This record gives sequence, structure tokens and C-alpha cells, in this order.
Amino acid sequence: MSESKAASSSEVKRFVLANNPKGLPKEDDWKLETVDASTLTLSDGEVLLTPKYISVDPYLRGVINGMKAGGVQTSIQLAEVVESKNDQFEKGAIVVGWTLPWQTLYKADVSGLRKIDPKLAPHLSCFLGVLGMPGQTAYFGLYEICKLKAGDVVVVSGAAGAVGSLAGQLAKLKGCFVVGTASGSKCKGVEAMGFDVCLDYTLFKTPEDARAALAKALGGREVNAYFDNTGGPVTHGLWPLLAKGAHVAICGQISVYNAVGEKDPIPDFLSGLIYKQINIRGFVVSEFLPQGLNEFYSTVGPLVASGKIKYAETVMDGFDTLPQAFIGLFTGKNVGKMVVKV
Amino acid sequence: MSESKAASSSEVKRFVLANNPKGLPKEDDWKLETVDASTLTLSDGEVLLTPKYISVDPYLRGVINGMKAGGVQTSIQLAEVVESKNDQFEKGAIVVGWTLPWQTLYKADVSGLRKIDPKLAPHLSCFLGVLGMPGQTAYFGLYEICKLKAGDVVVVSGAAGAVGSLAGQLAKLKGCFVVGTASGSKCKGVEAMGFDVCLDYTLFKTPEDARAALAKALGGREVNAYFDNTGGPVTHGLWPLLAKGAHVAICGQISVYNAVGEKDPIPDFLSGLIYKQINIRGFVVSEFLPQGLNEFYSTVGPLVASGKIKYAETVMDGFDTLPQAFIGLFTGKNVGKMVVKV
Repeated sequence: MSESKAASSSEVKRFVLANNPKGLPKEDDWKLETVDASTLTLSDGEVLLTPKYISVDPYLRGVINGMKAGGVQTSIQLAEVVESKNDQFEKGAIVVGWTLPWQTLYKADVSGLRKIDPKLAPHLSCFLGVLGMPGQTAYFGLYEICKLKAGDVVVVSGAAGAVGSLAGQLAKLKGCFVVGTASGSKCKGVEAMGFDVCLDYTLFKTPEDARAALAKALGGREVNAYFDNTGGPVTHGLWPLLAKGAHVAICGQISVYNAVGEKDPIPDFLSGLIYKQINIRGFVVSEFLPQGLNEFYSTVGPLVASGKIKYAETVMDGFDTLPQAFIGLFTGKNVGKMVVKV
Repeated sequence: MSESKAASSSEVKRFVLANNPKGLPKEDDWKLETVDASTLTLSDGEVLLTPKYISVDPYLRGVINGMKAGGVQTSIQLAEVVESKNDQFEKGAIVVGWTLPWQTLYKADVSGLRKIDPKLAPHLSCFLGVLGMPGQTAYFGLYEICKLKAGDVVVVSGAAGAVGSLAGQLAKLKGCFVVGTASGSKCKGVEAMGFDVCLDYTLFKTPEDARAALAKALGGREVNAYFDNTGGPVTHGLWPLLAKGAHVAICGQISVYNAVGEKDPIPDFLSGLIYKQINIRGFVVSEFLPQGLNEFYSTVGPLVASGKIKYAETVMDGFDTLPQAFIGLFTGKNVGKMVVKV
């Protein structure tokens, strides 16, 4: 109880949404508030949590569009149980939850919390990245949506990100030819992870630029699987390079999340799908959870532990950096998974 | 041999492509030529064919883009063997082939020919329509691509056409709620085939018009399966009305076949797929052939024979009407399957 009291007696902070941002969010779209700690008394079944690492992810941009100003921001986080009135979640347990508040101490009911075993990963923060939601997204997107087969030609946009970097590495381990796209200086790191080629998308001003660079990198190969995290010129340029029967996994469209209502500029988009018998599938990882988790941990866990899968993290330090960390996702500040250490 | 000689001794005509049309084809994009009948001497294994019914279908518009001027136009047709040097295809047999020339008498090797049993259908021309390629397209598109389930809410664009009319009727027989789109006066006929509602797409000037009319017809239902034969405002208007996990079969885009290079005007198209986990699949019926044919004939054949499935045909009379019949597909001249009786 001493930890709980110590935490309660210090200032409890939280971020609420001040305005619904238009376009790229700004730091003052959130407001830092102080919470009255005396409200944090537990009822039976509840736990008191303090975040250890808070995840910021591109999908939140869509969540924010649906939030009301004044609401507490939430995201995925890894938290420690500092006080418990629930037998399943003892004090000291580390839990992950997907809609936990940006607040330095808070009570929670346990639905939606999952205890994790810290011994399964080299670092605790892995459970937000390569072994967390982004890792699961890469895994199920590649196998369930892209129907990956040995020898496929694969393109991954956003290859330096938490999802893309794992998707490309898993495809390489399957014996595929893999081309990634990332911004400038990150390309070397992506190629160091084993991608055959990584292209600097910041050089592509038009879809035609992207097409020429992709065609050169592919060396005449047609693309069987496109794992799309970004949209934009890369996606539009790639389109004619898809093979018959290709699978396109629409995982994210970070390049357009701040441009709601823009029209998609792929010419002849739908008619172009017919003769090539192309499959397009938008997906969210929750479709495959929790039923796929055991398979995921038993497949990807050992690959991370043995170093066969590399991962990168960008760790921002301190609760107050949350808005800045989130905005940084859209300006390419992160390499790999972006998390905030509280 | 008398028939063959008679045919050979009369004038043999054919249509060649005069120009690659831009936009909507015109009749003089084809040229009628006379063929030297003395070239029609059979080698071993070959047959001499005369067309009975020639099919014109929207997909030909794409085929023409890939043809060279001066080449003989081809399409699906039902032909009679008038002379044979092949034991499998006796004189008098009726065959169907998918790339047979627009020519009143011609020799053919037998690869790609399939004999049909005329007794299976009320009329010979059914083998080009409800029991032919369009019927097969409707059947496999609905079951293999749209993954049709009892109770699904289904929208079919181009509902008065050969493909759309069968797709909607099969969905009704499965207990689905089915909305079609067709042009003006055809809507009554579509509703008479059992569609719950048929909307006049000529009233839709914008995707918003289409959306309002579709939403009203759907009465709050979300769309599980969209069988798209047309593209255009109907498709763009429908997009936000798709249910989570919806299947979209891109079968045809007749509204845009004459407008190559236009940009697709669905706003936020790809990003809109993600949270709804939408499946889009371009397909061609040949993916399912010939392996699916027995299933198709045994399922749809009896429904046609018993009158549970209705079909419509527009029969143009005479070989010389072929270009006119084809062009009529794009101006809505046909109800149901458009064929030319030779």
C-alpha cells in the first residue's frame, strides 16, 4: 500500500483532448490537467494502475476524429498494478490494455486487461511493439490477409515502422523478395534488417516517380503481396506493378489520415482490378485476437529472443511528451515503435 | 457435304477492326470484308463452323483496346459444325467457343470448343446468356467472391443485364434482401424478376444522389455483398453503406470502360476499407472454369428449366448488326443478354 499512497499523494496528471484537430494535430490540441487523487478509491474487483510505457500509434488519428473535446485521451499501454481489489490481478502485475487513459494513476475494471509475462521479451516495451499490437498486425496481415507464400514478391510501405519492419522481416524469413519504402536516412536501417531494397519515398513527388523507382527495384518482378501502411504516391505508383491474383492488405494509410475527404487519385482503380483478379482487404488486427495470440507468441517470440527478428524503438521520456510523440509519427520522427516511458 | 459446299459457295463475310476506338465505339470502327472461300479447306483435326448466335459482351471493350487494327474481331459464339475432320466434333454438332471470329464461315481447330447439349435449355441462345458466360459469372461471383449467405443484404448494379439479373435472382432464392440498379423503364422488369427494389440510376447525377436513394431503398440495412457490374455514381454512392466485413465483387465497370485514365472519385477510398474490414475482389469467370461447370449446370439448369429463374434476351437479327449490337450495350439498348442471330 505504501506505493499506492505515495502515488496518490503526488500530483496525478492527465491529458484531455482540447479540440478536434483538423489535419496534422498540434501539441495544444491536448490539455494537461490535474486529477483529484481522492477520487481514486477502489471498489471490489477494480485495480489501481500506473502506466510504465504508453504507446502512440497511427490508428489513434482516426480515434481522435470520433472523440469529444474534453474527453481523456486513451491508447494502448503497459501498466503496473499498484493496488488491487481483484484476485486475478495482484499488486506488481504488469498488464496491457488497449484503451487505457493518458493519466499517471487511475483505477480500472479488469475487462480488457491482460497480464503479460515480462520474461518472454528482452525488454518490457517489446509488448507494445514487436510482440504487441504492431507485431500482431504484421503477422496476421502477412499470413491471413496477404496469404504469404514462399517465393512471393512483397512490397511493404512504411518499412521502418513498427508494423512494416516486422512484416518485411517475416517475409524474408519465408524466402520472399522484399522491397520496402521509408524516409531517407531510415532506408539503411531497413536494409540492415534484411529487406532486399528500401526506397526513399520522400523522393517521390508523383505516383510516376514511385512507379519508376519501384519497377527498377523489382527488376521486372510483379508484386504478389502489398502490405500497405501509408497509402499516397507509393500505393498509387505501385498499382500497375501488381501481379495477377495479388493480395493487397490495407493496414494503414498514414499519409492521408490528416486529409479526410480527399479523393483517391488512382486512375481506373476499380476497373483495373478485374482482369488481374486482385484482392484488396482492409483489416484491423483485432479480427484475429485473442484466438491467434498463442500462435503469434509461439512463432514470433522465439524469433525475437534469438535475434533473428530485429526491432527498433523510439522511446520518448516522460508523460508530458505524449502529444509530441504522437505528432512525431506523422512527421517521421520515429524509427520503429514509438513509445513514451512514464 | 452439301451444306458445306452451299456455305462455301455463298459470300463469306467478316468484321475486322478498322480503328482502335477512343471512348464509345462507332459503327465504322469495324469494316465488313469478303473472305476468299477457297481458303477454307480443312486439315486433319479441324472443323468448319458457321455461327448461329454471336454474343456481344461489355468485356470486349477491353479486348478491343489490346487489338491491332485490321485484326478479325472475335467474341463468344454458338456455332454449328458444317464439315468435320475431327471425330469428336461431328457434322451438325453445336459448339460454344470464347474467341471465335466474327465471320460467317470459318475453320477452327477444336481446342477451346465445347459441345453443348441443346436439350438442356429452352432456347439455344440460353447457352450464351443465363447458362453461358454471363450466367456463370453471376453464379461464381455471388458464391465464390461475394461469399453469399442466407439473409445477406445484396446490391447488384446493372441489374437488368445478363449477369446482374441472374445474380439478383439467385440471391433472392437464397433469402436475401436485394436492391438492383438499372436504367429507367427496365426497373419494372427487374422488380418483376423478384428484386425487392430496383432504382433508376439515370436519376443519379452525383454519388450523393445515389447514396440517398440507396439508403432509402435499404431502409437502414447495411450492405453485406455488392455485385458491381457498372461502377460510376452507384458504386461511389454505395461505399459508405457497406457493412463491416462486406464483400465487393468487381465484375464489370461498364460506366467507365469508355473513359480510360479517369481518376476514381471515391473519397478516402483505401483508408475507408480498414475499420470496416472490407474485401474487394476483381474477378473474371474463367478462374472458375472448367472445374465449376458441372456444379453450375446442375444448380442453375433446373432453375431455368422450371421457370424459377427468369431471363431476358435482346436478339439482333443478322450478321451485319454486330457492331451496332455491341455499341448498344453501352447506351442501354439491351434488356438482358444481347446476342446477334446470324
